Amino acid sequence: MTYCVGLMLDAGLVMLSDTRTNAGLDNISTYRKMFTFEQPGERVIVVMTAGSLSVTQTTLARLQEAIDDPENIVDDVMQAPSMLAAARIVGNMLAEVAADLHETMDRMKQSVTASMIVAGQRRGGNMRTFLIYPEGNFIEATDDTPFLQIGEHKYGKPLLDRVVTPAMGLEDAQKAALLSMDSTLRSNLSVGMPLDLAVIEKDTYRIGLRRRIEREDAEFAAMSRAWSDSLRNAFTKIVLSRSA
Amino acid sequence: MTYCVGLMLDAGLVMLSDTRTNAGLDNISTYRKMFTFEQPGERVIVVMTAGSLSVTQTTLARLQEAIDDPENIVDDVMQAPSMLAAARIVGNMLAEVAADLHETMDRMKQSVTASMIVAGQRRGGNMRTFLIYPEGNFIEATDDTPFLQIGEHKYGKPLLDRVVTPAMGLEDAQKAALLSMDSTLRSNLSVGMPLDLAVIEKDTYRIGLRRRIEREDAEFAAMSRAWSDSLRNAFTKIVLSRSA
Repeated sequence: MTYCVGLMLDAGLVMLSDTRTNAGLDNISTYRKMFTFEQPGERVIVVMTAGSLSVTQTTLARLQEAIDDPENIVDDVMQAPSMLAAARIVGNMLAEVAADLHETMDRMKQSVTASMIVAGQRRGGNMRTFLIYPEGNFIEATDDTPFLQIGEHKYGKPLLDRVVTPAMGLEDAQKAALLSMDSTLRSNLSVGMPLDLAVIEKDTYRIGLRRRIEREDAEFAAMSRAWSDSLRNAFTKIVLSRSA
Repeated sequence: MTYCVGLMLDAGLVMLSDTRTNAGLDNISTYRKMFTFEQPGERVIVVMTAGSLSVTQTTLARLQEAIDDPENIVDDVMQAPSMLAAARIVGNMLAEVAADLHETMDRMKQSVTASMIVAGQRRGGNMRTFLIYPEGNFIEATDDTPFLQIGEHKYGKPLLDRVVTPAMGLEDAQKAALLSMDSTLRSNLSVGMPLDLAVIEKDTYRIGLRRRIEREDAEFAAMSRAWSDSLRNAFTKIVLSRSA
């Protein structure tokens, strides 16, 4: 499993992903699920992935291939005329890769699907954040729903629902993403440290902060403990409703 | 969908269920999902249900039929020699009903499954709480995991994981169950008010408190608001970790 969350706020973008990959419970590995494409000052794109590693790795490899190939402009997200066009490229490529694998996998009664979050901004355009479905179609974050999640989204959603607003600052947004991840880590073994965090300030067209949070990160552990304590304290102070 | 949670604590049992049933998003009804069987002072059993209404209603009808039939002792949960035996009766009946329906439903490419929580105590025995799987097998709550959930369990689990211990009092346990339900109600439309709450003190062999919490219940709404406010306050006070 996986948990990735992307917040799109007035002030910028905050992206957070875990790194655990498993083929069965007895075969666990660490794989990066966050990929960044950057031409600082001009364009920045973050892609986060969930689902079958064979699909996501192949898709990312093809995206990189298109970027590296000066003759392939059609599939180059760094030359796409808009973030929407970039999302369309990723969506098409994801659907293509899944379709290529589908026939073989279907024969083995296995499914291969993957979904992605694609977020970024190019000079002259707005910040945009898309969730790409396995079939290649996508939805977009809006002011009403300023965050998108892929993978194991349920444990971490109640907190986001309550605190995330487009007006929140980037520090609070990092906090929200990390605490949302913390709830998920506690409840689902197949989501695991280390974490990858990226923060992009609006209109900078570059990754302003990039951080890998390792398993032994003392400050993340302290934050996690403080959040647990706060929740327990808050719980203690709530008065039980008891109408007739 | 459904959310039911059962807490088994040193002090007693706390059971909470929602009542929303839906066949598609455009066909929503209210059905009780909590059923109590009681011979006060001797034996009390609470059954909560999730899954296909046709399966759960038929199972409950057969359980009631067996109780009412003086000649059917084998399937009578009120005469079962232990709570374990009662759980086995419910499990077998659930599996039987599902199997009866399976052939027809399979033809229609529909699945019918249901799961249940069975909790209670008989004079001379311990309190016990079981989660019955669709196949009729079951697991039991223990000191390590003093709560069981069926239905949409993920949204309400992080809170329970953090605050529920066997030593907690019955009031705190009600609070925990209600706040866990509150998180679920917020995030999943197919879980809905009114709620049914039952509290059974240890060694009383009766429902000590039974309460239906209606949609317009002002105190539940106040509790829900207070919890949201506490979470937001707690969030504000957390310091963002920022190691290198």
